[in-house]
Amino acid sequence: MIYYAYENFKNDTCKLIDKVRSFDPEVIVALARGGLTLAHAMAEGLNIRAVESIRTELYDNDKKRDAICIYGECNLLNKKRVLVVDDIADSGDTLEAVMKKLHADNPDTEFKTATLFYKRTSVHQPDFTVNEALDWIDFFWERDFKS
Amino acid sequence: MIYYAYENFKNDTCKLIDKVRSFDPEVIVALARGGLTLAHAMAEGLNIRAVESIRTELYDNDKKRDAICIYGECNLLNKKRVLVVDDIADSGDTLEAVMKKLHADNPDTEFKTATLFYKRTSVHQPDFTVNEALDWIDFFWERDFKS
Repeated sequence: MIYYAYENFKNDTCKLIDKVRSFDPEVIVALARGGLTLAHAMAEGLNIRAVESIRTELYDNDKKRDAICIYGECNLLNKKRVLVVDDIADSGDTLEAVMKKLHADNPDTEFKTATLFYKRTSVHQPDFTVNEALDWIDFFWERDFKS
Repeated sequence: MIYYAYENFKNDTCKLIDKVRSFDPEVIVALARGGLTLAHAMAEGLNIRAVESIRTELYDNDKKRDAICIYGECNLLNKKRVLVVDDIADSGDTLEAVMKKLHADNPDTEFKTATLFYKRTSVHQPDFTVNEALDWIDFFWERDFKS
């Protein structure tokens, strides 16, 4: 397990912002909870005021990929370029399900994804990312606020 | 101007989480962008998976309070206790407008507000807060990711 401290996050997020800059997104969609802090930081770095969020719930059953419920309506009408942000593309199931829904709901919008970490085995490979996750990542937001 | 570093945020957010605990919220609504990082941290600390976000835009005109547009639909059906989170209650105009809309849309839900900072002159005084803002606060998320 690797503790991912705020200082690591700060350095990696600045790298991610630089990679994303050429895409020039108009809106950032955060996947809650994991992508919220990253989406906030990227929106500040890229000077994007329009940040929306989507939240998913995963249900344990036999058909895992069919069991992701997506909450939160994003108003992306007339938006050409949207960046979808999460902390990690792990199994990739959530990102894959969310991207499928966003594409279906907004066929004229170009979507790209950004994460701090990715796994080679993820079914969704992000367009922009920084680190390969070779171990379990203990993000600072998952540890620093527990009593 | 006071630079509000991650370490300050970490300490204050833990205090805010302790204050909020007795309210026992089921959902956290973040006001984007300012409240996103705080909402994420509080949701982790309080073990709340349901985080939604609202975003507002302020238009310059003569009737300032009427010129706040609110984006993002929150699904709060059957939710009894909802915590609305922002970084600071400054003028309080945004929080006031958002709370008015949330109350109108969800008459059976109890809402409370939490911020890290408040001003005595704010038209909305948060239910839970930590510091009086006596100077301009330069939050780490507003500074650390600018190139």
